[in-house]
Parts: sequence; structure tokens; C-alpha cells
Amino acid sequence: MLGIDPGSVRTGWGVVERDGQRQRGIAAGVIRVKETAPLAERLEAIHRGVCAVLAEHKPDAVAIEEVFFARFAQAALVLGHARGVALLAAAQAGLSVSTYPPSVVKRAVVGSGRAEKTQVALLVGTLLGMRELPGVDATDALAIAITHLNVSRLGV
Amino acid sequence: MLGIDPGSVRTGWGVVERDGQRQRGIAAGVIRVKETAPLAERLEAIHRGVCAVLAEHKPDAVAIEEVFFARFAQAALVLGHARGVALLAAAQAGLSVSTYPPSVVKRAVVGSGRAEKTQVALLVGTLLGMRELPGVDATDALAIAITHLNVSRLGV
Repeated sequence: MLGIDPGSVRTGWGVVERDGQRQRGIAAGVIRVKETAPLAERLEAIHRGVCAVLAEHKPDAVAIEEVFFARFAQAALVLGHARGVALLAAAQAGLSVSTYPPSVVKRAVVGSGRAEKTQVALLVGTLLGMRELPGVDATDALAIAITHLNVSRLGV
Repeated sequence: MLGIDPGSVRTGWGVVERDGQRQRGIAAGVIRVKETAPLAERLEAIHRGVCAVLAEHKPDAVAIEEVFFARFAQAALVLGHARGVALLAAAQAGLSVSTYPPSVVKRAVVGSGRAEKTQVALLVGTLLGMRELPGVDATDALAIAITHLNVSRLGV
């Protein structure tokens, strides 16, 4: 199970596996692209990065956060570009993509839809038995992967 | 020269070549994707469509409209996905991508930055010697290609 937290500069990813009743963190990281590079080149780097993760970890499914923006349309547009190439990479690998709203991710990890980011990060590490977490973007990606495994286990 | 007008359902494209002092419309079309398909599949279809156009027409550069949204962040996000995979296809083909604001495109084609869409469409057909234009999305894509050729000729 691969969770992705796309961004135009940092795209977090995290691989989580079911291990009996528990979940295990397999690997996580951040695809960083040069902020100063032209957008098309940055998108190519993100796409290449996600494809490399898919090739190395061969997940059976992909999950990504749903995005709701009330404001900041320009930020939404830029994020859409990064999210688009990440989704493309999943589709090209023949994988189904699930999306979850941020509140569902927080509830799945912490138990409350209004949890703080730091709480989420702490519990992701504990749940997955990972001592070192490679930054907040990767933690968010792992949280999405955990959510998918929980939701699909419950058959919700 | 390939102009692209990306959208989540219809992505217009148009190939324009310089022909001495004039410009000539080579081909134009619209990549249509099923509105009901999952987003990742739609993005794959758009990416595949743009790659096919690049492979068939081998343009030397790509131009695409700049997008400014004051409102409608959700629309901006969805458009960003489509625009992202179109830009990715250009980058994967090793092509440079130029972007132009809508007002510059209108001025390049009609002579006024406030021209109506119908005026743009009419003049695109006349300028390129194309009698039949395959819909408004393709016309917009041709207009962007015309803009790029004009701007690069003037060395602006």
C-alpha cells in the first residue's frame, strides 16, 4: 500500500503493509524537486520519482488525500499539476487510486478528525513501529496509507 | 509548433508551422476523455493523447496558456491535473514549454487583448488558411501556437 502526499516542491510517499492485525511501515521518503526549475521539468522529476517508488516497492494500491480549497486558487492550480502526474504514474502502473479527505485521515490515525499535525506524526511512527520518520511530507503519506488499510479492512 | 489547451474533459491541440512570412495550420484536434471515468484514468488518456500528437507531428516546441484564477479554486485544482500531465508529456519529449497569458494570445491573434472568443476563432481560421476548425478547444490551442510563433519571430 502506497500513500502519496503530492506537492510542487516536496512529494511525500510511504509504503505500509498489513502484518496480521497490525500494520508495518516499510519505507518512506520525500521526492524533492528544484523550486527554481521550470514547472514542466519539476513535473517530470515528480513523475519519475513516483514511478521509481512504484517500481521498487510494487504496492498493490495507491491512496492520496482529497483536496478541498475554499480559497487560494493559484495554490490549488499548482498543487493540481503535481497531484496529476502522481495519479498518472499510479494509473500507468495499473493501480487503483483511493482518495480520503484530511479529516478521515486524521480520524483513522489519531481517532479525531481535528487532530494536530504533530499528533498525527507521533502516532504514525508508533503505529508503524518506525523510529525515524523522514519529514512531515512522508509522514502525511504514511498516514494516508494507514487510512486506506484501515478503511479497506473494515469494509467501509 | 504545438499549442495545447488542456482541460479535464477536452484538451485542444493545434500544430502551426511557419511558412515564409505566413503561418500555416497543419493539424488540430481535441482529446476527449470520458467524464465519468476515474480522474487517474482520465489523466492517463490525456497524457497518452498528447504523447500521440507529439509522436505524430514532432513539433519543435510547445506553448500553453497561463492560467490565472481569482476564484473557483476547485476548478483550478482539476484543471491543474490535466495541465500537469500535458506539461509532463512535453518535458518527456525534451521540448521547451512557453506559456502566454490569455490577453497576450488574444492580442497576438486579433490585435486586442479584450477580443471575444468568436473573433479569435474566426481569425485563427483566416490566418492559418484552415476552413474547418475542429471545435473551440482546438481553436484556442492553435491561437496559442500562433502567439508563440509571433512572439519568437519578433524576439520579444
